[in-house]
Amino acid sequence: MSRPTNRRQDNHKIDWHLPSISSSASAHHMSRELFVLTYGALVAQLCKDYEKDEDVNKYLDRMGYDIGIRLVEDFLARSAVRKCRSYSETVDMIAQVAFKMYLGVTPSVSCSNTTENEFFLMLDKNPLVDFVEELPAGRCSLCYCNLLCGVIRGALEMVHLAAEVTFVQDRLKGDDVTEIGITFLKKLEDKKHKRKK
Amino acid sequence: MSRPTNRRQDNHKIDWHLPSISSSASAHHMSRELFVLTYGALVAQLCKDYEKDEDVNKYLDRMGYDIGIRLVEDFLARSAVRKCRSYSETVDMIAQVAFKMYLGVTPSVSCSNTTENEFFLMLDKNPLVDFVEELPAGRCSLCYCNLLCGVIRGALEMVHLAAEVTFVQDRLKGDDVTEIGITFLKKLEDKKHKRKK
Repeated sequence: MSRPTNRRQDNHKIDWHLPSISSSASAHHMSRELFVLTYGALVAQLCKDYEKDEDVNKYLDRMGYDIGIRLVEDFLARSAVRKCRSYSETVDMIAQVAFKMYLGVTPSVSCSNTTENEFFLMLDKNPLVDFVEELPAGRCSLCYCNLLCGVIRGALEMVHLAAEVTFVQDRLKGDDVTEIGITFLKKLEDKKHKRKK
Repeated sequence: MSRPTNRRQDNHKIDWHLPSISSSASAHHMSRELFVLTYGALVAQLCKDYEKDEDVNKYLDRMGYDIGIRLVEDFLARSAVRKCRSYSETVDMIAQVAFKMYLGVTPSVSCSNTTENEFFLMLDKNPLVDFVEELPAGRCSLCYCNLLCGVIRGALEMVHLAAEVTFVQDRLKGDDVTEIGITFLKKLEDKKHKRKK
């Protein structure tokens, strides 16, 4: 790598009439569009690498898991949230703090009426598919955003919560909404609470 | 995909003592960390797919190019900047508006003293390598962030400016700074300006 020696610093500053988005951007902020397109490139590459949709889904989930176990440190450091006392609080924190922080959207939360460990995040708008109109041809079983499930699973595992995280509905597959299901696998906290009563 | 029917909406809202980053996030904003880790997963996947660093670099550049030709529309629509009248203005806009908007950083700009079409963007802090300490073993020729070069090249091409965009220095390779070189290939604008004189 050679560093050109003949150069001068460009000191003139031009008034660009900057849009408001620039002035409000903090040190950790970026615009989502570059991420969304880069994510699309990643999915396209995996579709090239793996013939079966199931394998792409699995791989996206595993990649997401690896990301989640690293991202959780950043999340805990920057969010300064207190420890959650229930699954319900945990899911609210994922929706209201983590999604807002990392994707700029806040899914609504619902929970199962029959079991205490099943929750659903409904994404009114899924930012990850901003530039995606439909699933690629012949890829009808692809869970395009499966990375997100892996991220949630990995992050939860790092705070000692085992969970299954999957897309239960997906607009890209013709469903009315996009929805992520979170099923906590251990009921340790509940047991602890019950003992205290 | 089945939609569980037994569920209730979780209406209770908890005061999370949200960090300031959440309240200032606009509809287009997200935190950079998820992007940085996802980008890392993409590079790792390409390193798995291609043995030679040169092929990974080429592929990252090509992916970036495809992203750039799409991203430029979003940029022009949201930045509302006026048409640039010189290469120098164009590079300033890339540094001060585009980098700020999409990566949250503003590189400093310098230009060659000997030619009028060579410019350099110096990244004091490269957000894309936030979680990267060094290049993967045996990957010493990898241009880890080469996607960015492709993005710039693609976006410039869409505004009818052909350019070569490469990393001329890279901290990940032991250089003191990280620097992207932009060489405009056609001097149409300059000729036009000269004719007017």
